[in-house]
Amino acid sequence: MRYLTAGESHGKGLAGIIDDYPSGVSIGIDFLNEELARRQKGFGRGKRMSIEKDAIEIISGVRKGKSIGSPISFIIQNKDWCSWKEIMDINPTRSNDKDLKNRLLNPRPGHADLPGFLKYRPDDIRDIIERSSARETAARVCIGGFAKIILKLMGINVFSYVSQIGKIILNKDAVLNDIILTEIERSEVRCPDKNTGKKMREEIIKAKKQGDSLGGKFKVIATGVPAGLGSYSQWDRRIDGRIACAFMSIPSVKAVEIGDGSNVSGKTGTKFHDEIHYKSGTGFYRKTNRAGGVEGGITNGESIVIGAWMKPIPTTAIGLHTVNIRTKKSDKSLKERSDICAVPSASIVGEAVLSIEILNFIQEKFGRDNMEEILENFNCYKKYLEKV
Amino acid sequence: MRYLTAGESHGKGLAGIIDDYPSGVSIGIDFLNEELARRQKGFGRGKRMSIEKDAIEIISGVRKGKSIGSPISFIIQNKDWCSWKEIMDINPTRSNDKDLKNRLLNPRPGHADLPGFLKYRPDDIRDIIERSSARETAARVCIGGFAKIILKLMGINVFSYVSQIGKIILNKDAVLNDIILTEIERSEVRCPDKNTGKKMREEIIKAKKQGDSLGGKFKVIATGVPAGLGSYSQWDRRIDGRIACAFMSIPSVKAVEIGDGSNVSGKTGTKFHDEIHYKSGTGFYRKTNRAGGVEGGITNGESIVIGAWMKPIPTTAIGLHTVNIRTKKSDKSLKERSDICAVPSASIVGEAVLSIEILNFIQEKFGRDNMEEILENFNCYKKYLEKV
Amino acid sequence: MRYLTAGESHGKGLAGIIDDYPSGVSIGIDFLNEELARRQKGFGRGKRMSIEKDAIEIISGVRKGKSIGSPISFIIQNKDWCSWKEIMDINPTRSNDKDLKNRLLNPRPGHADLPGFLKYRPDDIRDIIERSSARETAARVCIGGFAKIILKLMGINVFSYVSQIGKIILNKDAVLNDIILTEIERSEVRCPDKNTGKKMREEIIKAKKQGDSLGGKFKVIATGVPAGLGSYSQWDRRIDGRIACAFMSIPSVKAVEIGDGSNVSGKTGTKFHDEIHYKSGTGFYRKTNRAGGVEGGITNGESIVIGAWMKPIPTTAIGLHTVNIRTKKSDKSLKERSDICAVPSASIVGEAVLSIEILNFIQEKFGRDNMEEILENFNCYKKYLEKV
Amino acid sequence: MRYLTAGESHGKGLAGIIDDYPSGVSIGIDFLNEELARRQKGFGRGKRMSIEKDAIEIISGVRKGKSIGSPISFIIQNKDWCSWKEIMDINPTRSNDKDLKNRLLNPRPGHADLPGFLKYRPDDIRDIIERSSARETAARVCIGGFAKIILKLMGINVFSYVSQIGKIILNKDAVLNDIILTEIERSEVRCPDKNTGKKMREEIIKAKKQGDSLGGKFKVIATGVPAGLGSYSQWDRRIDGRIACAFMSIPSVKAVEIGDGSNVSGKTGTKFHDEIHYKSGTGFYRKTNRAGGVEGGITNGESIVIGAWMKPIPTTAIGLHTVNIRTKKSDKSLKERSDICAVPSASIVGEAVLSIEILNFIQEKFGRDNMEEILENFNCYKKYLEKV
Repeated sequence: MRYLTAGESHGKGLAGIIDDYPSGVSIGIDFLNEELARRQKGFGRGKRMSIEKDAIEIISGVRKGKSIGSPISFIIQNKDWCSWKEIMDINPTRSNDKDLKNRLLNPRPGHADLPGFLKYRPDDIRDIIERSSARETAARVCIGGFAKIILKLMGINVFSYVSQIGKIILNKDAVLNDIILTEIERSEVRCPDKNTGKKMREEIIKAKKQGDSLGGKFKVIATGVPAGLGSYSQWDRRIDGRIACAFMSIPSVKAVEIGDGSNVSGKTGTKFHDEIHYKSGTGFYRKTNRAGGVEGGITNGESIVIGAWMKPIPTTAIGLHTVNIRTKKSDKSLKERSDICAVPSASIVGEAVLSIEILNFIQEKFGRDNMEEILENFNCYKKYLEKV
Repeated sequence: MRYLTAGESHGKGLAGIIDDYPSGVSIGIDFLNEELARRQKGFGRGKRMSIEKDAIEIISGVRKGKSIGSPISFIIQNKDWCSWKEIMDINPTRSNDKDLKNRLLNPRPGHADLPGFLKYRPDDIRDIIERSSARETAARVCIGGFAKIILKLMGINVFSYVSQIGKIILNKDAVLNDIILTEIERSEVRCPDKNTGKKMREEIIKAKKQGDSLGGKFKVIATGVPAGLGSYSQWDRRIDGRIACAFMSIPSVKAVEIGDGSNVSGKTGTKFHDEIHYKSGTGFYRKTNRAGGVEGGITNGESIVIGAWMKPIPTTAIGLHTVNIRTKKSDKSLKERSDICAVPSASIVGEAVLSIEILNFIQEKFGRDNMEEILENFNCYKKYLEKV
Repeated sequence: MRYLTAGESHGKGLAGIIDDYPSGVSIGIDFLNEELARRQKGFGRGKRMSIEKDAIEIISGVRKGKSIGSPISFIIQNKDWCSWKEIMDINPTRSNDKDLKNRLLNPRPGHADLPGFLKYRPDDIRDIIERSSARETAARVCIGGFAKIILKLMGINVFSYVSQIGKIILNKDAVLNDIILTEIERSEVRCPDKNTGKKMREEIIKAKKQGDSLGGKFKVIATGVPAGLGSYSQWDRRIDGRIACAFMSIPSVKAVEIGDGSNVSGKTGTKFHDEIHYKSGTGFYRKTNRAGGVEGGITNGESIVIGAWMKPIPTTAIGLHTVNIRTKKSDKSLKERSDICAVPSASIVGEAVLSIEILNFIQEKFGRDNMEEILENFNCYKKYLEKV
Repeated sequence: MRYLTAGESHGKGLAGIIDDYPSGVSIGIDFLNEELARRQKGFGRGKRMSIEKDAIEIISGVRKGKSIGSPISFIIQNKDWCSWKEIMDINPTRSNDKDLKNRLLNPRPGHADLPGFLKYRPDDIRDIIERSSARETAARVCIGGFAKIILKLMGINVFSYVSQIGKIILNKDAVLNDIILTEIERSEVRCPDKNTGKKMREEIIKAKKQGDSLGGKFKVIATGVPAGLGSYSQWDRRIDGRIACAFMSIPSVKAVEIGDGSNVSGKTGTKFHDEIHYKSGTGFYRKTNRAGGVEGGITNGESIVIGAWMKPIPTTAIGLHTVNIRTKKSDKSLKERSDICAVPSASIVGEAVLSIEILNFIQEKFGRDNMEEILENFNCYKKYLEKV
């Protein structure tokens, strides 16, 4: 499954095209919109989230409720486009005083502002920040939704939760069950533990008061993934590498781990590795999952468990030291409307990108033309795994 | 620069083909062999490292000491091939008792053994472990060496060191200077601090005595990288994503960070982001580098700083619980000759993969045909960065 | 430059996303719409062409008349969407009698109808024909327009004409000059010779009367292409291979040639190859161009000349023998509204795909970030070619 | 299946790496060497062909006669390497008089010599001609051999013959049966008709006497290809496009057709398209195959039929006008040892590239991990096709 996304933060909207999506899949628009809504929620998001309720408009690839094998294209309109029409005009405008005054010239540390300016050479940093904005992830959540629809047909489910905001850390990994999952969805910070969630909320309020912002950590888990996806045969065939790429591509993510990841190093081999067991009818299995479902670049049949660390949001009410790109004089960084903390949202984006990557490996192994055919091949393989 | 590697751990040797390597680059064979030697060193490696002194044999793409623009292919012969000829025979052999007895049937937890067996369906786990072995990284170190040669012509240098082995952690980041770099190369564990290095050594000895193995953490730094490589425009154009993929593809790496990475989350925005400064003749610069040289998926002109965590080596003298793939009976995992700790070696592989990724982005921006042309484009851009 | 297109023939519209388009390029919407109009013209097109006047609506990637380095996305709305809303509904509809009656069950020979049905397994062949329709090429003409805008800044121009329709063949290659180019654009069949054009027109009228359809041949020429694009180093780096792929991907094209192509075979070597000359200030050049501008997979500085043969349009007023996919009974093929001859249109699509391929090689060599930077690198190279 | 090849014409040898080759395939070395021998035969080849009898040496990826899922790497040694050791030395040599005298400075028209020189900027055209030589195709024939082995397991067979040499044209398409296939393999010019073959042979003798060279045309046919490979959904998913790319990448090929290709244009629609029929137990089929097995970019279940035109060999005993790259003075082109006509050899290369492309689409649809699994998926699909 290939895809491209497009769209500026305050332009007409976001666009996406998904290629190689199999035919014969029932597409629930409501489900996709729900996924978009999950991304928009979260305590600590800016005012914009309440202005806009994202909704997908499918342009092509779906007919009478089913995918037809053609590229799926969609648009998510920006609800406040009308108030940005002039600033974001696609057509040439005569440079006037107002226009010049509106230009952004003070790059914000931590954002793409300065490196983007150096790369693309605009005379207005707005040309950079409109695309480098995390708004782009709404399109990816949509595409992830399409991926999830297929994965569910195969019994693969993808969940997420927040395990750290600022200095507040969840003290143990969540055990996913229906009660915990409901708690996560109910929590304003997507925290599985009510008490910790409360502290996270307070941490955000505190940061806001100080004109500051926060980062944190989230985890994404995929259950039901069969053994045998990915390969050690060539460096770029490893599923852990491709997953790491996908997570590191989420704006503000600065570290990614699989399984026990960064805690791994302190343990000795005999304490770390997941011993192998066998049960007739089930096949091979493990009692622990410190490897996070991947050994040697291949899924081993256990849940895939990913953790990702997010830096604090770069835009802060208290500006940071910067330099005007035209005058080269010192100044304070510009303050685009922004969130205080976006970790809960990022966890939803994490679900999306993990779903997409898993689906890619699924399609490599079981085909990508028609859902019936794919399921046939998939079920045949599942039976093999049980009897091997 | 595309590349493929091939080769089994106890087969004839490793092979590699590099495509899109520019013409007109002087290739120092000694330098490449030195890189291979750096990978082989390190306290905690098994006996094999002393048997074999890897050497590259170039087959094509280089003439009279210079690259000619054609694909570069090479072989690194396995020195002990003669003693493995029968077991690794390419030709069909009649299945005899000896052959049956030699088969590996007990997959080792933590290795690709079991998932590889489920995926490729061999009747001998040797078919899996020969390629999933970390020996493959020798070919990547070679390819990284080719990349380094070009990067050096551009003033880009790539270094590495070990910051953790088992429970022994280097208590602060190394400041790279000539003295420290010499210390690192001299250290058996590639640790910049003599005292910590000593403790790491002891930790390895202890683990060995206990029939156990160790993991750890290493850091890789690239200096002199110009601003403007990578992009936020599309998820798979981000340089941090591609670097994360490359590091996670190093066998046993379970977590990757850029800059302050996993420590990022506890800091607030105003404490984290690297403020922007300007000096005439130099251009824009930072006084801190918590971002690790990447903002918004683009290099910002500061050093790229990557950290990677490695799990303990899965093969341990004390076996782990496993299941015989034929009989399905419980057993102990097999004990292929192995290292106790490979973090120092992995840091050299880290240098290689970072060099390769940076070169890829360099070639996208400045061309890939001829070194003279590339340098002209590169220098022209450097001047722009200084004057912007 | 990567791109994806999407969109059904009678759906809401066509969509496209272009990635890696450099920043700082002035985008003339009028020019793009003109290109779309050129594709729609041509004697022999069906009624649909007069219903619809295609127009591009840019969604993203362009601001104040200039590209900003972000992905460019666009939509070309289908003007008759309102009359197809029910048939092409994206949402699930209850299967009713009318719906069942509307289903297409008789695959047309020569179209994707049958192989598409076998691959994607729909219960209505409309699911196939909507995307396999040549309407998709409107999106590619648009993307080609974006490519042309950049090529023009480099002095590279791309032209086309029709050299055969049915049995009427232009008896010699056109010499491109302003008069001939004007004649081509004026001709209803894009033929450079008025007399031959007239005969082609009559051929189309005759075929129409007989309820039949016609194919033909068109040529596409790119002037001003510098030597050195493409390579013999690896099979998929050859510019002729990639161009052949692009042309063969135009619906109905069944053969592609470069230079004298299919006439090549009858000549001996000394009569065929283009002798090499040199002029100070100009550099190397040829007096003939039988190679069509490519030697050894690399451009040689002469014009790129491509010829493409197109089969007759598969939909004919007189039906062909086919089989009902449900009943398996013999029947006549279905008659979707269609053209008699689309060679003139296809030549415009040919211009688009050639422009895209050339731009791809240009970007590989000169970068893809910013137009100013690319031009600097390009001009530097042009000077080298003159002085070499 | 990805692959890279490497190697110069007079260097140590050719190398190749094949990635994603499934495990569990029995590899017949003899069959691969036979394929190499078929490429070397053919009346009109130069003396070199008798010096060298190519043989594959597998380095990795095969164990005990079977593929193991790891990358397959191989070397084909150049038998006359010892006599070229000095000229092709990989190590730097002090530039001496002899070395300077040996340099090639007169680019041959029709070869990559001049464009390659302009691109890669060597001081000796030998740096270009060593890789741009058609010797590289030996590696591709080898890789094609690996592909053929899998295709045969699926009942897909690939054949070729020569239909034109110089002005001698086979007057009708060959009907492939065992007698004709034997005749083709026996013919020195791979012509299915004895009489025409004799004339072709005479044409070659005549050209040789005149110090000239010849081109021609060959056809490649794949039987047993199931319907449903490739897609119209996106331009680069069409199997005809990818096949055209592969054929145009064969050195000297200047035109490619599918099915009736270049003859297509003169026919009207009702005379051209292949009517659709159905037989219980067989499924859909055609009685004609003018489309060459592809409709709408998808295979339709009939044989794939490709034609390719080859230009005359550029190196001729009678030199052509050229210019010395150092002095810029007019001169005659250099005369590297060469063939008179290579069409029969090229047809074998055509078999290889068609086999590779078909296998690629097979793997996209049926997987690429293990042969048993692929065949299971494939057979399941074949049953569907019969019963649809």
